Amino acid sequence: MNNTIKELFDRKSVRVYQDRPIEVDKKQLILDAAIQAPTAGNMTLYSIIDVQDQVIKDKLAKTCDNQPFIAKAPLVLIFVADYQKWYDAFKYYHSEDEVRSPSYGDFLLAYSDTLIAAQNAVVAAESMGIGSCFIGDVIEQYEIHRELLNLPQYTAPVGMLVMGYPTDQQLRRSKPARFDSKYVVSVDQYERFDNEKLVKMFDDRAKLANRSSGRVFVDDIYNRKWTNPFIEEMTRSSKLWIEQWGKEDEES
Amino acid sequence: MNNTIKELFDRKSVRVYQDRPIEVDKKQLILDAAIQAPTAGNMTLYSIIDVQDQVIKDKLAKTCDNQPFIAKAPLVLIFVADYQKWYDAFKYYHSEDEVRSPSYGDFLLAYSDTLIAAQNAVVAAESMGIGSCFIGDVIEQYEIHRELLNLPQYTAPVGMLVMGYPTDQQLRRSKPARFDSKYVVSVDQYERFDNEKLVKMFDDRAKLANRSSGRVFVDDIYNRKWTNPFIEEMTRSSKLWIEQWGKEDEES
Repeated sequence: MNNTIKELFDRKSVRVYQDRPIEVDKKQLILDAAIQAPTAGNMTLYSIIDVQDQVIKDKLAKTCDNQPFIAKAPLVLIFVADYQKWYDAFKYYHSEDEVRSPSYGDFLLAYSDTLIAAQNAVVAAESMGIGSCFIGDVIEQYEIHRELLNLPQYTAPVGMLVMGYPTDQQLRRSKPARFDSKYVVSVDQYERFDNEKLVKMFDDRAKLANRSSGRVFVDDIYNRKWTNPFIEEMTRSSKLWIEQWGKEDEES
Repeated sequence: MNNTIKELFDRKSVRVYQDRPIEVDKKQLILDAAIQAPTAGNMTLYSIIDVQDQVIKDKLAKTCDNQPFIAKAPLVLIFVADYQKWYDAFKYYHSEDEVRSPSYGDFLLAYSDTLIAAQNAVVAAESMGIGSCFIGDVIEQYEIHRELLNLPQYTAPVGMLVMGYPTDQQLRRSKPARFDSKYVVSVDQYERFDNEKLVKMFDDRAKLANRSSGRVFVDDIYNRKWTNPFIEEMTRSSKLWIEQWGKEDEES
């Protein structure tokens, strides 16, 4: 296993940071590495907001499902799916009337571009000993985040990355186990698991996580994730972001 | 710049491959590196289809916007957003009636997980000298792909990665330039560009791409991407994938 792959294997979420800023040149490398990621048609269908204002960080720590460590992160980057710049350019160079509005296909394409770039930022940071945590909750609170971040119609805040140098305790923390690839990869077609294979999958995973059974493991996720109020809010808000792209241009 | 970041900077799409298979152990490393990626709640909300059957590769080369090189790729991986396994487990361990169906928030969360994992596969492959190309077109042709890949309701084919060892010509090809970070990154809020900044952005980019002006550069994208029939199909099909997750469970 080469060093790059070792870093991909070793990388785990870091939520407690040293009180030490990220150096300017390292931050720039993280941003540039993100921008070097694969992008559909080489169009760079995203923007990155570098949140420096402590007031905004404090607010995000509340609006993103109450996670106080966000406010303490030395680096907070919001990755925004963005067709607004291209669409504005199309309208500028052509007659406004003849240019179609963005829609669902453009939304998913930009959404993909944005996550791909964000993961490059994670990998670049990790390679320099900088820890990171993805915050998907930034897609929640449509109305608040749209205003707070000044987001126009053909954008959406897809993911937030909070970064900083890990504390010793975070470095020592072992990485939570993943599923074995035999439960993730299938050949030629998607494999729909029957109950027997499902039970085996979650029993195996429970062992890796030191839980007594697959049922206990699944119940924990059911209670913490599936029935948690944050996911109701995520669905409400996600629907609004999606619909916003499906609508005709509000400005024209 | 360390070696990992150098690889992120150097990585470009590769669409022509040597007639040489990917070694089994390297393929496994690529898959395992993907599975080691950050994932929401450590849930691994995706599956990976390893397409080996030449008949299916040939079909995908047609249904994914007619790109014949897909059929010749030694490795074809389809990354599928997947809440079906977890949802089936929730229903198995609980009473079916009390378990809510997945919805838009779960869709976007799984969508994110899937792209993040896919980009880890790209980075792992690159580190071993294996070229890759993202094919977003796999989100098109909803009806055909759903059947071809045996995809149940709470899945969606988010991205396809085709991989192989690059030919010499591909190795020599220079990487297309990206936007300068000053046009991608803003501080504290999204920056909506006025026409002057838009023109500057695309004029600067045109220079990097050896085009005579921003207008010529934007027009090229307008014709090849914005008004191309593939994007109409992508929007039609994307809407169906999204709506599928928004619906009540069809099986219950």
